[in-house]
Amino acid sequence: MSPLDIAVVLVSPRNPLNIGAAARAMSNFGFADMRLVNPYDLAFQEAKSAVKAHYILAQAKVFSTVAEAVADCNLVIGGTSVGNRDLHLPLHRLEAGGQLLKQHSGHAAILFGSEKFGLSNDDMSHCQWLYSIPARPEHASMNLGQAVAITLYELRRDPAEETVRFPPSERAAGAELERFTELLLKMLNESGYIPERTGVSSEQKLRRLVMRLGMPASDADTWLGMLRQIHWKMKSH
Amino acid sequence: MSPLDIAVVLVSPRNPLNIGAAARAMSNFGFADMRLVNPYDLAFQEAKSAVKAHYILAQAKVFSTVAEAVADCNLVIGGTSVGNRDLHLPLHRLEAGGQLLKQHSGHAAILFGSEKFGLSNDDMSHCQWLYSIPARPEHASMNLGQAVAITLYELRRDPAEETVRFPPSERAAGAELERFTELLLKMLNESGYIPERTGVSSEQKLRRLVMRLGMPASDADTWLGMLRQIHWKMKSH
Repeated sequence: MSPLDIAVVLVSPRNPLNIGAAARAMSNFGFADMRLVNPYDLAFQEAKSAVKAHYILAQAKVFSTVAEAVADCNLVIGGTSVGNRDLHLPLHRLEAGGQLLKQHSGHAAILFGSEKFGLSNDDMSHCQWLYSIPARPEHASMNLGQAVAITLYELRRDPAEETVRFPPSERAAGAELERFTELLLKMLNESGYIPERTGVSSEQKLRRLVMRLGMPASDADTWLGMLRQIHWKMKSH
Repeated sequence: MSPLDIAVVLVSPRNPLNIGAAARAMSNFGFADMRLVNPYDLAFQEAKSAVKAHYILAQAKVFSTVAEAVADCNLVIGGTSVGNRDLHLPLHRLEAGGQLLKQHSGHAAILFGSEKFGLSNDDMSHCQWLYSIPARPEHASMNLGQAVAITLYELRRDPAEETVRFPPSERAAGAELERFTELLLKMLNESGYIPERTGVSSEQKLRRLVMRLGMPASDADTWLGMLRQIHWKMKSH
């Protein structure tokens, strides 16, 4: 699958903000082929003038029937929050439906129904299968712009692509921690927080405390410097 | 991770539609703890009155600083489209960040910045790490409501949960296909489409054509019935 082979088809959209939000999500994730079936005309004009992803809306094609909108597609699927028992179409969760779509070659169309009614039985009869976003059954109906965004994200997500730009830093080494612990112990003795006579057990407890901090190597000098300055100030009184 | 342990924190949101959309996505995916830092007051009031997921907005807590909003959270992360080189915080893609968050135990907060500016350096300094949704670098800035929806979907998606409600039906068996092929061949002979004398090669070609249809077992009788009726009508002239 290339994102450019996938048409996002909005069937009877009514709200210009949703049309705009769908276009923005398409631009975010690199999709470009928007098709509108029987849109509320004012909504489409308003959306065109409002959003940043205007190049997608400027190229969007308008059709009067679903059949015409998907004429060049050899796979047509529909997003639904309820499915439809009467149609006996396979209904996948998005996680699995997305995999099927990624494996498809050729032009494909994803149908999204209107804000109020979703896809009609007639719309669904053009589909080979349906998918649903795994929302709570008690509130499964999603906002149109969010449903488009989540669907396109699923198609573009790639766990293999993980790169951490600033990986968590290396932990400070034993010697650095030991210098820190020794100075801190000295200060705690001098301040009376730990009486000198408590000996080894206090020292071990303190070492474990410092160990559990998880101090990054790159910060070890800074921490030691701060302690030294405070220690100097303590002694200068 | 339980969704109830995760706070969705909107920092300085300005648009009531986005606050409402975030609440709706939270309800769709079973999250309930919304917190607002320094929201534009009119926007919050307007959102409260507008959306279906009103129970989430009714319970939403308002704070004047990020520090207060995340006081009870032992993990704070931030969503960003750009990251911030100066802070040297780890920056994960959502796919991996979502895994880290799922493994976390205790209260966690996800910070989302304002529509216009995203999270500030000061907001980010409260975070242990940042994540970004894998959008195109040329248009990485996402709509706030969509960013919240995609993030919560990633936390709730579960490929192991796949259930196909109406699995694709079984294919018709050889005998059914053969009855269909034989009758069709007869009709094509009688109509002159395939001259009878072409013999075996035409029959094989036709059988392969029928095979490639992938006719479901449950539809085989219907197809045969249709052919029979057409054949009867052909002969009755």
